[in-house]
Amino acid sequence: MRIALAQINATVGDIGGNEEKILGRIAEARRAGAALVLFPELAVAGYPPEDLLLKEHFLADARAAVDRIAAQTRDIVAVVGFPERAEDAYNAAAVVADGKVQAIYRKVNLPNYGVFDEVRYFQRGPGGAMIEVDGVQVGLTICEDIWQPGPPLSDEALAGARLILNISASPYVAGKGQARERMLAQRARDNLVAVAFCALVGGQDELIFDGHSFVVDHDGDVIARSPQFAEDLLVAEVDVQAAGSARLRDTRQRPAARDMRPVVAELGSLRTAAPGGEELVGRPGGPVAPLLDGDAEVYAALVLGTRDYTRKNGFEHVVLGLSGGIDSTLVALVAVDALGAECVTCVTMPSPYTSEGTLADARTLAQNLGTDLLELNIGEPMAAYDRLLADVFAGREPDLTEENLQARIRGVLLMALSNKFGWLVVATGNKSELSVGYATLYGDMAGGFALLKDVFKTDVFRLARYLNERADREVIPQTVIDRAPSAELRDNQLDQDSLPPYDALDRVLEAYVEQDRSREELSQDGFDPDVVERALALIDRAEYKRRQAPPGVRLTPKAFGRDRRTPITNRWRG
Amino acid sequence: MRIALAQINATVGDIGGNEEKILGRIAEARRAGAALVLFPELAVAGYPPEDLLLKEHFLADARAAVDRIAAQTRDIVAVVGFPERAEDAYNAAAVVADGKVQAIYRKVNLPNYGVFDEVRYFQRGPGGAMIEVDGVQVGLTICEDIWQPGPPLSDEALAGARLILNISASPYVAGKGQARERMLAQRARDNLVAVAFCALVGGQDELIFDGHSFVVDHDGDVIARSPQFAEDLLVAEVDVQAAGSARLRDTRQRPAARDMRPVVAELGSLRTAAPGGEELVGRPGGPVAPLLDGDAEVYAALVLGTRDYTRKNGFEHVVLGLSGGIDSTLVALVAVDALGAECVTCVTMPSPYTSEGTLADARTLAQNLGTDLLELNIGEPMAAYDRLLADVFAGREPDLTEENLQARIRGVLLMALSNKFGWLVVATGNKSELSVGYATLYGDMAGGFALLKDVFKTDVFRLARYLNERADREVIPQTVIDRAPSAELRDNQLDQDSLPPYDALDRVLEAYVEQDRSREELSQDGFDPDVVERALALIDRAEYKRRQAPPGVRLTPKAFGRDRRTPITNRWRG
Repeated sequence: MRIALAQINATVGDIGGNEEKILGRIAEARRAGAALVLFPELAVAGYPPEDLLLKEHFLADARAAVDRIAAQTRDIVAVVGFPERAEDAYNAAAVVADGKVQAIYRKVNLPNYGVFDEVRYFQRGPGGAMIEVDGVQVGLTICEDIWQPGPPLSDEALAGARLILNISASPYVAGKGQARERMLAQRARDNLVAVAFCALVGGQDELIFDGHSFVVDHDGDVIARSPQFAEDLLVAEVDVQAAGSARLRDTRQRPAARDMRPVVAELGSLRTAAPGGEELVGRPGGPVAPLLDGDAEVYAALVLGTRDYTRKNGFEHVVLGLSGGIDSTLVALVAVDALGAECVTCVTMPSPYTSEGTLADARTLAQNLGTDLLELNIGEPMAAYDRLLADVFAGREPDLTEENLQARIRGVLLMALSNKFGWLVVATGNKSELSVGYATLYGDMAGGFALLKDVFKTDVFRLARYLNERADREVIPQTVIDRAPSAELRDNQLDQDSLPPYDALDRVLEAYVEQDRSREELSQDGFDPDVVERALALIDRAEYKRRQAPPGVRLTPKAFGRDRRTPITNRWRG
Repeated sequence: MRIALAQINATVGDIGGNEEKILGRIAEARRAGAALVLFPELAVAGYPPEDLLLKEHFLADARAAVDRIAAQTRDIVAVVGFPERAEDAYNAAAVVADGKVQAIYRKVNLPNYGVFDEVRYFQRGPGGAMIEVDGVQVGLTICEDIWQPGPPLSDEALAGARLILNISASPYVAGKGQARERMLAQRARDNLVAVAFCALVGGQDELIFDGHSFVVDHDGDVIARSPQFAEDLLVAEVDVQAAGSARLRDTRQRPAARDMRPVVAELGSLRTAAPGGEELVGRPGGPVAPLLDGDAEVYAALVLGTRDYTRKNGFEHVVLGLSGGIDSTLVALVAVDALGAECVTCVTMPSPYTSEGTLADARTLAQNLGTDLLELNIGEPMAAYDRLLADVFAGREPDLTEENLQARIRGVLLMALSNKFGWLVVATGNKSELSVGYATLYGDMAGGFALLKDVFKTDVFRLARYLNERADREVIPQTVIDRAPSAELRDNQLDQDSLPPYDALDRVLEAYVEQDRSREELSQDGFDPDVVERALALIDRAEYKRRQAPPGVRLTPKAFGRDRRTPITNRWRG
């Protein structure tokens, strides 16, 4: 049986645009001789639509799009994710064929942890469901349904499904691809079914969907795979007879089949124009794109996140403060890869504390990348504020106030450029700084998008080295990588004067933020107790800043944002 | 039977402080001769603790506090809300007596809508449970359990409960008190039980808990009520025999009692030192504080919200930009009522566009309130930025950029004062502005707390008039109330040049934001289609600003923040 997985980049709320993409891919799949074409979870609406799902008219519009898609679908069966409004609301998959919606499957397992809030919006479906396509029994599941080993998947397999479809919107975190393939392979082996996983691709606010659609056979081998971080139509030939025969030879004791919605019986068999059905037309499998890993994967996520946030929000051009430090350097590289050098303006804003070295590096970098570089010296506004505040501040020593002022002047200038030219400001702070509050609200935190919000400082360095290796030349001047990190907001300032060394700090942050380890456990884990004390005190106090931070690209299992919902008012120190 | 409802102001994460409050109120209730004393939902942890609930050591600390409270409790039964860690996590009530935790009830109905995310954290309890105190059968419920008419409440009543306890953390919205009393009175009448509702009071980030603990008898009459927005120990005498006798005479057909955890049987009867038990010692009832309404209630919520956000986050003093306009005037009044004039600094920051009238009004107002007033003229920084940006902006007309610059200079100055003196900046924008994005990010939106975030402009005017009436003098100069709203960011600017009139705008905003009405429905509702078009286009585009706004006081059933989770990247225009 030949199937097609349409890994599309749907945009939240763009029902018309998503509909058009879906129709285009259905036509393409039909031309490729596929009997079935899959689309991601909530493909019609985009994912996650959040509180748009509380609007009757949004749900009605989504349903109307599904009906229009159905009306144009012949000779192929399409499975299209959409939010269904019935006696309640469901996260659903429409089975579309012969000019109409033939059946609707409703997601059973609703995730409500981490970045997910599906219980807020949806009612659970009643259980597994199957369809018959060209004589082949096919089970339906949506995303989380297959992450749990039991029903609905196991029920569908017991009821005779040879192929399980899973339509997903599976948010990316670094390295998740391996986990997905391992898990789905085991599901296939446990149930002796082939599994087709069709996933959303694209950026949506802080979430990245990496795509990574693939097909495993009943032995758990990946027989076809889409590239990550790009749209794709993956066409694969699945040996569904082999799955059936393997079951005859299976010696394990299986439980009795449970109740299931008899969609097959209601519908009868759906017929398509595809050759094959239970037969193989070509060799089993399809193209197998490599799975990215490590720095290449993270970098691709950053690039896609930047491109989609910018373009989907109607911007053509971004602007960023390029200090000559490593963070803004990495941001500039990502922005150029995402949008092209002609769509990126860098601004260097030296003060009396800016070293010649960093200023020179900023110029070199802009030249290497081919971006515009504006130079705006902030000395005059600094002096104007100093004069204005002199009386009020009389008798007090310079402190963080004056440092923050410089950062805020830069923030104001970037925002002025944004306002005047319609550019999106990309903030350049990293996750280490944001964790401990070593960042100025409305200063270096200002912007529409905080690209490195989920990238620790040590990872910024690693990515920079990776980019130079990849380019096989010093795109990033070595001096940028070698210079000790400094905010350059007073003479001879180094980050290490205020913070533990990043190597030590980042490991503590990871354990505390991402793994919720306690102070005591961190000490038992062998972290320097002094670093632990300093880091934890700073993290908890900085929540108010993070709450006002722009969205960024989520890369870890616990990014700041939807993932980590911590009260600002919070006296617990654990 | 005499009972006590301890309406405490718990702080999230302050387990030690909450424990101390609880112990103090237990002692006080015992001295008052109460057999039972109730504490709010999750009283030990504060509500909502959000992702603190994902930390093992937080849950262990909370349990340790419950055990310490139990060890000190004699001669009285206390019901204390806490997050329970067992085979899963539960929103629980500990029944504490005779020096130990005697039983634990687990919340059955977990709210996961609006501002609630309880399914993220908790497993449902198995069902209703009862205890026997001095011979009286008492049913246990937690918050949402009683907002649904059936189990666990109905099961407990059928199993013989004379009194139902409900411990709550019920977030305030204007006018909610009436709804609560109506609902609980009906539950009492339907089930022929007395109901004691003990609720949290205090501010927690954007949520306000108004307290409003009360007792209704089995006829649904309110027989005792705590004042709102303040801590209280409400002691009330409940006629539990009357509830029992009424049931004998009840002619309605009742369903059979369902399965329930037989906590009573396991425990036996708990005995206290209180006189009474089933007997009445005094007259039924207790003090009945008036229920606030209208402007008085909303104003009290604003005051409590400001005081708690400030103090619970460790600030003593706030600073705000006082333009002489109506919004900042109202904020100044609230701040003074919340913290005292000596803890409030006003800053007026005139520009060349500031009228003499507003500046004079700012001075009059600061004098009326007795607050400090700093005057910082922003002309010089304006000129410095203009010079710096002259080349880059050459050939372009002045536009919103220059207006935003002024607002941002003011934001920078307020933040500099905050940094230097450790003051909390209170932002002064209102909900109308924030809805349509008529506010400058990092400018007038800058601050730690956005007091009027959920107050429409027309409500700002109404509250101002209310305050003058209440004071019986012009605390707020009449000119402030009469002047047409203006941001004064260019010559002769009026809000109405950019926005529909607030009377019309606010009604559309309310219908669209709070009731999710569609464009079409709004036109059918009779709103001016032009106002609808302009408002909706502006609202959806401004989500990115709101995402970076500080928290404020939630007053409506759909405030911006936890309540309304809208994607920034969103092409839907409905």
